[in-house]
Amino acid sequence: MSETIGFIGLGNLGLPIARNLLASGYALKVYNRTASKAEPLLALGAQQVSQPRDALTRGGIVISVVWDDVALESIVMSEGFLEQLGPGGIHLSMSTIAPAAAQNLAATHAERGCYYVEAPVFGRPEAAAARKLWICLAGPSAPKERVRPLLEAIGQGVFDFGDTIGAATLVKLCGNFMGTAAVQAMIEVTGLAKKSGNDPTKVIDMLTQTLFSAPIYQSYGRVIAEDPERYSRGPIPLKDVNLFRETASQVESQTPLAHLLHTLLSPIRN
Amino acid sequence: MSETIGFIGLGNLGLPIARNLLASGYALKVYNRTASKAEPLLALGAQQVSQPRDALTRGGIVISVVWDDVALESIVMSEGFLEQLGPGGIHLSMSTIAPAAAQNLAATHAERGCYYVEAPVFGRPEAAAARKLWICLAGPSAPKERVRPLLEAIGQGVFDFGDTIGAATLVKLCGNFMGTAAVQAMIEVTGLAKKSGNDPTKVIDMLTQTLFSAPIYQSYGRVIAEDPERYSRGPIPLKDVNLFRETASQVESQTPLAHLLHTLLSPIRN
Repeated sequence: MSETIGFIGLGNLGLPIARNLLASGYALKVYNRTASKAEPLLALGAQQVSQPRDALTRGGIVISVVWDDVALESIVMSEGFLEQLGPGGIHLSMSTIAPAAAQNLAATHAERGCYYVEAPVFGRPEAAAARKLWICLAGPSAPKERVRPLLEAIGQGVFDFGDTIGAATLVKLCGNFMGTAAVQAMIEVTGLAKKSGNDPTKVIDMLTQTLFSAPIYQSYGRVIAEDPERYSRGPIPLKDVNLFRETASQVESQTPLAHLLHTLLSPIRN
Repeated sequence: MSETIGFIGLGNLGLPIARNLLASGYALKVYNRTASKAEPLLALGAQQVSQPRDALTRGGIVISVVWDDVALESIVMSEGFLEQLGPGGIHLSMSTIAPAAAQNLAATHAERGCYYVEAPVFGRPEAAAARKLWICLAGPSAPKERVRPLLEAIGQGVFDFGDTIGAATLVKLCGNFMGTAAVQAMIEVTGLAKKSGNDPTKVIDMLTQTLFSAPIYQSYGRVIAEDPERYSRGPIPLKDVNLFRETASQVESQTPLAHLLHTLLSPIRN
């Protein structure tokens, strides 16, 4: 496990993932736009670099976990990145982006003889810290096998969706859309319970112990029940529901629920 | 267990519930509008009657499982029903109706010294047959205790929501609304998967084994994945989503998702 891995993006998910890789014995060269976020990792032996390309080992593996297509593209297109990754090098991309953007990035990597492997992950930061991420994987076989030990060091399960880049990313968008729909349903349920004089927590507890006994309901349900009107979802659902509906729109697939959720989540309403 | 119980309504849920009560040793007097539906029960010892009131024992227990408010009210108001149920008699109502309608019915029963106890159930007909229903209960304490053995004979769990009629019915409406939202999300996910060249079953299997590992997703997901565009939901979701949004409207609780689902389910679209 002495191979040095590049690691780009130390946000809410990237940081605990990087920490677990260090704990599993991997050497890491880490890059983050805001350099101070790397500090907790330096004490654990990570080496910090000041440009994305400096995190790379020629022919090696670099992991990225960044916010969106734009951030990921700007890293890949940054000076010297693909040259330094070099032939046989693997970019293991864990960000949630559009499947079409992932396909474009894969083609860009292929032109330089590099591999792009997508491995978007499901799980909140606490799940990442506990190595409990669920990982969707797609890309060419040999590089997928090479990165598998890394994935097993950070998650509780890897689901392989084949060779075609975009297939794993699509599943990630589908899951985030379904989760956002579930959260909206719980907001309406707990709001009604409260306004009609019932205890929202009691309603949610019953439903999430029985028909809806799934992590997504249990982890969000109680928080929503505590204050249904003020529950705030952060920026991820809006971004990912938008990616879901745009992806559907490209293949003319009807998504009325995704459109409603996008409208409800859009800042103009607030 | 020799007490004779009245049983009204032998539909998809009523029939397996009645069968399980017979199997547990209860004597049943059964009534159904379409008399022929009672036939499978007669061989098991049930006695068929031709009017609702004839199913009742004075001061005894009658169970009803019917389609909606209108059907339930027409039974309660049918000639001689409340007189025959009599003081101390219990009407154990398992239908999914509006909480406000349940409250009105409870008041009507109370005027005659009868008890109305609500116990709407979650579960498909297969779950009812397997005694796997989840039961929401509300009503006055003493009659609730008296009917509890009946509920334990037909379900896998009873959740008591207190004395106030309507509280258990509200939970049932909330659960059916959340289930309908989950199904709509899966329809959009599997439709997108299919149209974008991915295998809908593989997508659903991954999601329902991980974040969405709940009965409602697992029981409907595979069926939807097989043919997302043609999946048909029957009349129950439309009825219950409509009750949910009407109930919310009475307390001015916002339910944009329920409104969308109601629109999508309304026959005018087909």
